[in-house]
Amino acid sequence: MSVQALTSRSEDFSKWYNDLVQRADLADYAPVRGCMIIKPYGYSLWENIREQLDRRFKDTGHQNAYFPLFIPESFLKKEAEHVEGFSPELAVVTIGGGEELQERLVVRPTSETVIGYSFANWIQSYRDLPLLINQWANVVRWEMRTRLFLRTMEFLWQEGHTAHATHDEAQAETMQMLGAYADFAINEAAIPVIKGRKSNQEKFAGALRSYTIEAMMGDKRALQSGTSHNLGQNFAKAFDIKFTDLNNELQHCWTTSWGLSTRIIGAIIMVHGDDQGLRLPPRLAPIQTVIVPIFKTDEEKSKVFEAVSAVQAEFKAAGIRFHVDKREGMTPGFKYNDWEMRGVPIRIEIGPKDVEKNSVALARRDIPGKAGKQFIPRDGLVEVVKRTLDEIQANMLKQATEFRDANIHEVDDDYEKFKQIVAEAWASAWFCGSAECEAKIKADNQAVSRCFPLEQTPGDGKCIACGQPATERALFARAY
Amino acid sequence: MSVQALTSRSEDFSKWYNDLVQRADLADYAPVRGCMIIKPYGYSLWENIREQLDRRFKDTGHQNAYFPLFIPESFLKKEAEHVEGFSPELAVVTIGGGEELQERLVVRPTSETVIGYSFANWIQSYRDLPLLINQWANVVRWEMRTRLFLRTMEFLWQEGHTAHATHDEAQAETMQMLGAYADFAINEAAIPVIKGRKSNQEKFAGALRSYTIEAMMGDKRALQSGTSHNLGQNFAKAFDIKFTDLNNELQHCWTTSWGLSTRIIGAIIMVHGDDQGLRLPPRLAPIQTVIVPIFKTDEEKSKVFEAVSAVQAEFKAAGIRFHVDKREGMTPGFKYNDWEMRGVPIRIEIGPKDVEKNSVALARRDIPGKAGKQFIPRDGLVEVVKRTLDEIQANMLKQATEFRDANIHEVDDDYEKFKQIVAEAWASAWFCGSAECEAKIKADNQAVSRCFPLEQTPGDGKCIACGQPATERALFARAY
Repeated sequence: MSVQALTSRSEDFSKWYNDLVQRADLADYAPVRGCMIIKPYGYSLWENIREQLDRRFKDTGHQNAYFPLFIPESFLKKEAEHVEGFSPELAVVTIGGGEELQERLVVRPTSETVIGYSFANWIQSYRDLPLLINQWANVVRWEMRTRLFLRTMEFLWQEGHTAHATHDEAQAETMQMLGAYADFAINEAAIPVIKGRKSNQEKFAGALRSYTIEAMMGDKRALQSGTSHNLGQNFAKAFDIKFTDLNNELQHCWTTSWGLSTRIIGAIIMVHGDDQGLRLPPRLAPIQTVIVPIFKTDEEKSKVFEAVSAVQAEFKAAGIRFHVDKREGMTPGFKYNDWEMRGVPIRIEIGPKDVEKNSVALARRDIPGKAGKQFIPRDGLVEVVKRTLDEIQANMLKQATEFRDANIHEVDDDYEKFKQIVAEAWASAWFCGSAECEAKIKADNQAVSRCFPLEQTPGDGKCIACGQPATERALFARAY
Repeated sequence: MSVQALTSRSEDFSKWYNDLVQRADLADYAPVRGCMIIKPYGYSLWENIREQLDRRFKDTGHQNAYFPLFIPESFLKKEAEHVEGFSPELAVVTIGGGEELQERLVVRPTSETVIGYSFANWIQSYRDLPLLINQWANVVRWEMRTRLFLRTMEFLWQEGHTAHATHDEAQAETMQMLGAYADFAINEAAIPVIKGRKSNQEKFAGALRSYTIEAMMGDKRALQSGTSHNLGQNFAKAFDIKFTDLNNELQHCWTTSWGLSTRIIGAIIMVHGDDQGLRLPPRLAPIQTVIVPIFKTDEEKSKVFEAVSAVQAEFKAAGIRFHVDKREGMTPGFKYNDWEMRGVPIRIEIGPKDVEKNSVALARRDIPGKAGKQFIPRDGLVEVVKRTLDEIQANMLKQATEFRDANIHEVDDDYEKFKQIVAEAWASAWFCGSAECEAKIKADNQAVSRCFPLEQTPGDGKCIACGQPATERALFARAY
């Protein structure tokens, strides 16, 4: 029995991804087209993601709540851009309790409308502001072409919704949550995302301004990994969210929304995975360290298991997430490959000789082959494991950052060169932001502007598409 | 400004409940009939419930996963009793992406079918068993008469689904999880539930045997607070969940399912609440201790706030969930009533005199009026608060247990007396368990058998309805 090799990334990145999601036991297709079953290993990863995000939301004063799955169809129509953006993607309930419904119900594609309705009830005066709410929920968007985690009909996410007294407060909240996403992505998921503003064409349906964290995948495509929107007064006007201000005058609120979904799991896979399988950042990995006991005879087994028990107790006390692979009828080699496929950051092997020498073998998932394996003393193992997990986390971020930086190219005044770059990497170019230029670039390159990065050297130049003056650079890439 | 008094429980229990849910800021009605908005305070309570249950599931080897919201209509029909039980309650999606669907999709009312489909794919051999899965999810059942938390069209719950090699293992799992629910209810929610087996008439649609934890509400009605089902091989046969056993023979699995929902919040309200509002068990309370600073002048304010800051720091370090009520323009008395309405177990008042005397006032929610209020030294406050929280938890369980025991009456051979008892309390009576007797009792009393309690003195008697021999007592009550 041997672990079947993956399609290599260079050969067929897309097939590599699909195979890996299933081989690493993260998720599977459901009987309903485009829906996803998140298996225990994948769900455990999502639980860790959720915990890290939720902590950031609560630390910044947000509270969780829960709003209904079903939205009256009429609600969607209250904000003109919003309904236009989401109408083609809706799943609609027309029958309930055996009878045709008088008003059809939309399964939420996002909850601005029903939460806007609630906010209008909850908010009376400036004392009720800011109102800072988050929801963990499932949402449904009818997608034609689906891929596990990246684009599924139903997915899990969180959606933050806040209301404020002024534009500036709403803008500050929008940026704060973009920052929370970036901090999470960089420091927990080891994904060096770039914060930026979406062009008018790419912004959320109904938003004043949309911001994004953009990540570069292993095939150099871009993945929008989280978004934060300043909704202006658009939804407040559509849903009559008003407050009396300090002067006792009635004002419309300024609202924001921001979301991050199970899509981030797709990003983790595609940023870090290699031809041996998944590589999970230690801070999010469901299993940080797997212990593989090695033995032939019963006598060896009992010695080794005794040593393993002692390690288990230490790991448990130290809060290290670990698993002992006691499966029978499998060779150690098979098990090594299997845990590499699942991306466990550290593997510890304990055999009879290790017990005698009072040592263990420790293999790092981020450094392939013999270079990543060392024999270390049994004493002080917990400290070494903890330090190594930190090193792996840092190394994965470093690798991803180097890869990203090596594949973003600045290009000025040369549309042919721009086309060559965008065909296989990211281009940074002056961009006027107009719908016409966006459309031209999209038609020529199957690529769109990913964002205007927030961090850029002030200056100006000529728009890469039309040659007119432009004051900001944008990133362009093909995207998921 | 004063807190409006609640309708008293004795005057109109039902109105008391409805008012309280909204006045305590737990939940509100949604724009879609029968759906619920869980507000931050109610959701925080649910988060604590979830955490305590999830810990128990994981400690017993279960893993979380996520299965799709939508189920093909044909799946429901594979298990005959199941489809009969759930058909009248379904919400059905007939339109997706603007087009009529070829196969209509049911919004899950429960997930035995879609999880059964997955289990059939996941399980090959006895090595894959037991398979122990749990899901946290929303489900939809089209209900005509709805009440917040107790019966809503959409609700949140967890549903456990497991597969085993033998009947006995499935039965042991069913009982283990019933035990986990009872342990949670008693030790976290302070609700003295009774474990029992459902009659054939009252069991889950498709189950071999259903078990329940039954709780007595403040109006002496019963509330089914969690259920655990041994599904036998019914779903395994319907979904072809098979494994090869040690002798290499193909066998159908034995499966279980078990669920507990946001309904438990209704139980907490109705078991513990009083005419002043909610009373939350300390172990689940979102806020265990509220601190109300009292002052008139700015000088007093600054002294008091300094003292409050020091208390905050100590509470935070000790892991006490607390809130400081700094709202302006409200009297202390208003705040006291408001926090009593929200059921916070301990209130601490700190005023200028307390600062001088190095003391604080501490008021217990479970002991009304002056009897529950004492002045205690500032030093050692954390210890007193911790001990008091434990005392309140124990006292609430004691009160609820005494109330329950005072309202369960044994009755033998006297159907008229049985009718009188069931009209206002619970009756414990010999019961043959037949559909005819169940129907007669229901027609005469608007009450059904709640369960055959697991703990009962062996013996026999005459069925309270038909007079034929019976070997078990059942509990009868009107129910939510």
